[in-house]
Amino acid sequence: MTALPRITTFGWVPEFARGFVRDLRPRWAFEEVGQAYEVDFVRDAKAPDYRQYQPFGQVPAYQDDQLEIFESGAIVLHIAKRAGQLIPNDPVGEMKAVQWLIAALNSVEPAVMEYAMNAIFEADRPWSGDRQPVVLSYIERRLGDLETRLTSRVWLEEDGFTIGDLMMVSVLGGLRGTGILDRFPAVAAYVARGEARPAHVKAMADHMAVFEQAAA
Amino acid sequence: MTALPRITTFGWVPEFARGFVRDLRPRWAFEEVGQAYEVDFVRDAKAPDYRQYQPFGQVPAYQDDQLEIFESGAIVLHIAKRAGQLIPNDPVGEMKAVQWLIAALNSVEPAVMEYAMNAIFEADRPWSGDRQPVVLSYIERRLGDLETRLTSRVWLEEDGFTIGDLMMVSVLGGLRGTGILDRFPAVAAYVARGEARPAHVKAMADHMAVFEQAAA
Repeated sequence: MTALPRITTFGWVPEFARGFVRDLRPRWAFEEVGQAYEVDFVRDAKAPDYRQYQPFGQVPAYQDDQLEIFESGAIVLHIAKRAGQLIPNDPVGEMKAVQWLIAALNSVEPAVMEYAMNAIFEADRPWSGDRQPVVLSYIERRLGDLETRLTSRVWLEEDGFTIGDLMMVSVLGGLRGTGILDRFPAVAAYVARGEARPAHVKAMADHMAVFEQAAA
Repeated sequence: MTALPRITTFGWVPEFARGFVRDLRPRWAFEEVGQAYEVDFVRDAKAPDYRQYQPFGQVPAYQDDQLEIFESGAIVLHIAKRAGQLIPNDPVGEMKAVQWLIAALNSVEPAVMEYAMNAIFEADRPWSGDRQPVVLSYIERRLGDLETRLTSRVWLEEDGFTIGDLMMVSVLGGLRGTGILDRFPAVAAYVARGEARPAHVKAMADHMAVFEQAAA
């Protein structure tokens, strides 16, 4: 019997982080490809023994019979390649999917995070209010570009839903509750399409159930 | 005769951006694997015809006989896989290299960019000075984690120099001139080792020569 793949995440996070922790990404990928998995809860991600495994003290980390890795982007890519799903089978289609996964992580997520950091972690700083239009302009520029891309498309490429879409929808989910996506209807519809996939619904429910159990 | 791969970049950038534009990353990878290439200069990265090719209006974009892609991380990965170099030949080693490439882009570069944005693009904002210690704390946390990782290692993994190191050194090069790396001697030595590689020296010289020619 082969052991199931395992991911790490937190067993408790503050209210504002629920629905946003990055274990959602491998959970979603696992559900899409129909792979059962186990979850290990990390008590202290900053502890030296966990950092042997995840140098930045973050979640998720991943392990299976063959390897241990971290970074949600790498984990999602590995889950897809291991299953032979969520990524086209030809080299060109594969690179396009990887390109969009990296675009989500490096061209879009930094702007989402700057907005969130200003609104949450720097909320008590004297500049947070004045800086808000500036960080909003960073993310709106990216959303405008994605709006152009998505106006005539269901997913980012013609090949159908890939890990590039999974990651882009997940990254844009970081804006949930801000109302920013309302001004970008094609992007908003794209995110809604992604989040309505049964695999996403199941992953989100499992993610939230951890905190509900912790509170009970 | 097969056409050479091509990348796009800018023919002119302001002084502060020289040595930092991301065409450096594919240039470095091409030199490492011994692949000749062509460079196309983009006059207006925001123009609709270029955005058909690069939706975010950024450089570099890449094309060869088989595909067009963008995102420096995806381009570097493709150059390595196409050459069968800079990335281990086994699936585990390959995923570890990809993991570090993505860690550079998603866990380290956002903090480097927040620091740079505050110091450069938000320098004339009233909060820039007061916010500087805050953005410094973000990048110092990551550098502390890398210091632990690199204290006993030459490169990030035992397999030797990979695209993970190429990207991490390139991302950390964004702190050049700030003095921040002086407090992280293992990281500073690692960046110096990477930047001393002949392929990096050649790539940087070719990158800088573009602006010298433009000024002449």
